[in-house]
Amino acid sequence: MKQVRISIIGFGSVGQGVAEVLMKKQDYLTKMGLDIKVIAISDSKGSFINQNGIDLNSALEQKRQKGTVANVQKTGVEIINEIEHDVVIETTPTNIEDGGVGLENMLASFENGRHVITSNKGPLALKYKYLVDTANLSGCKFKFEATVGGAMPIINLIKGVLAGNDILSIQGILNGTCNYILTRMLEEEASYEQMLAEAQERGIAETDPTYDVEGIDAACKLVILANSVFDMDSTYKDVDSVGITKITPESMLLAYNDGYVTKLIGEVRNGKLSVGPRLVPVGHPLSVGDTLNVASVQTDLAGPVTITGRGAGSIETASAILSDLIAICNNDN
Amino acid sequence: MKQVRISIIGFGSVGQGVAEVLMKKQDYLTKMGLDIKVIAISDSKGSFINQNGIDLNSALEQKRQKGTVANVQKTGVEIINEIEHDVVIETTPTNIEDGGVGLENMLASFENGRHVITSNKGPLALKYKYLVDTANLSGCKFKFEATVGGAMPIINLIKGVLAGNDILSIQGILNGTCNYILTRMLEEEASYEQMLAEAQERGIAETDPTYDVEGIDAACKLVILANSVFDMDSTYKDVDSVGITKITPESMLLAYNDGYVTKLIGEVRNGKLSVGPRLVPVGHPLSVGDTLNVASVQTDLAGPVTITGRGAGSIETASAILSDLIAICNNDN
Repeated sequence: MKQVRISIIGFGSVGQGVAEVLMKKQDYLTKMGLDIKVIAISDSKGSFINQNGIDLNSALEQKRQKGTVANVQKTGVEIINEIEHDVVIETTPTNIEDGGVGLENMLASFENGRHVITSNKGPLALKYKYLVDTANLSGCKFKFEATVGGAMPIINLIKGVLAGNDILSIQGILNGTCNYILTRMLEEEASYEQMLAEAQERGIAETDPTYDVEGIDAACKLVILANSVFDMDSTYKDVDSVGITKITPESMLLAYNDGYVTKLIGEVRNGKLSVGPRLVPVGHPLSVGDTLNVASVQTDLAGPVTITGRGAGSIETASAILSDLIAICNNDN
Repeated sequence: MKQVRISIIGFGSVGQGVAEVLMKKQDYLTKMGLDIKVIAISDSKGSFINQNGIDLNSALEQKRQKGTVANVQKTGVEIINEIEHDVVIETTPTNIEDGGVGLENMLASFENGRHVITSNKGPLALKYKYLVDTANLSGCKFKFEATVGGAMPIINLIKGVLAGNDILSIQGILNGTCNYILTRMLEEEASYEQMLAEAQERGIAETDPTYDVEGIDAACKLVILANSVFDMDSTYKDVDSVGITKITPESMLLAYNDGYVTKLIGEVRNGKLSVGPRLVPVGHPLSVGDTLNVASVQTDLAGPVTITGRGAGSIETASAILSDLIAICNNDN
């Protein structure tokens, strides 16, 4: 049995999802010969440490009841620096100004020789190459499938399943909130403002929706995808971004009557990055609706290959983290 | 450099595609530390053998000019039995009556301790479990991504990228010819017969289209997928199959006006296998048109994940064979 000691740094929706998924898949992991021990969990109030392995059920229960798992006054970065373990699961809230605490956590992990799996877009949308180079120099693995579209496993698809193919370009719907609003605008022939309000009521859009509806979230994901697949060194500020706030239901209906749906498409082609409203033919693999995310890669051998999945959700995102964790444990690329 | 000696048994469209792809990707394979040598090629007229590695360009040229590569009177199975090599690429024409020469080739390969990669559906749609058990007993790998939908890499997606997920059900459009005919029937409001004729003119449907339009091809692919993912032991005769010949453009148009497209959907759910016309909501990941193939898996963690790609094509199918070859060389699962 291979013992792997991990920390979960950031215990919000995604971090708790990771704990739930690890409990749910314990038999599966044991069958694979993996003994995964969570030796520390950190949230914004402090940390909980148990070198023998934390009882995840109790930790989740305590988080629900008290709002924190903290029993010691240690920050995430202190856990990373002081407690011996193998893999850091970095799930703190994203910060796209300067990378914030997530960036600090990732760099501290590499300094201490710990592998990193993250769902935290900010640091990668700002300092991708620096992080990858630092990971490589320290001999650590750095996996981030969960940063791009939750349970739409595009990065691992390209790096694993499509091995041998040259990737020529990538297009995708990388923001579920925008996809929901646009899908509903067409269905109801209703205005952007009306459908934004509905999305907010249903918990699909945030109170301040700027990050989603102006295309910034999609730009961050596009940058991570482009940097990872094309070995670029771009930041989300390099993306020519237009959001969805100016789209009218009248223009969408006109397009639909000609056989097109209006989607917010992120694209990387010939080194150029863009996010903006585009017309997609009905029946095209990118024409999916609801809150779905989708990415289509043009390859030299396989032609176009498209993958669709849920872009968000606690368990869905944790599923991407689990697959990265299994890959690290199995020493896959 | 790891030397891997392979044979290509069956040198029609797919076999030639494999040769082209191996030439095109030689630098890539060398960079991966792989020295892939094709030591024999067989077609229906005989074989061509060169233990030092066949010049693939000349072989392709000779095939084009003379219709065969044969310079010795040896069949594929004789090559497999007599010539020392590591991996057999089995790309003979499919036979769904008794598995034909493909089945014989695969069994001979395992008997001789050679790994098998195939695009040949027949043997797997008839004798899946027997083949897999024989491969396992002989310590050989058996890879068949190319049998299910050419360049729609659903099997490797499930086994690799979605590792850790339980697969609950699978649905898909597994036949590009039917998808083309149905897509065109709706676009043109034309009859099945008219659009079949168009598909035949364009080389998308065969002169005798029975195998495609009656759902037999889709049933074969569904069976391979179901056996592989759910460890079943079914044959294509276990599939409750209905084809597309009775569908009218009037019924399709009525459905479309209600927001649905009519697709030939293969499904495995609770151990039951079916292929038949189904209504799919516009904007659903399965609503893709043209000749595309698509498969959607319902998972316990990631939710629904859908992959779309070209279901046929010489280079596209060879791309799936290449990814299986790389996996075997790297000793991946």
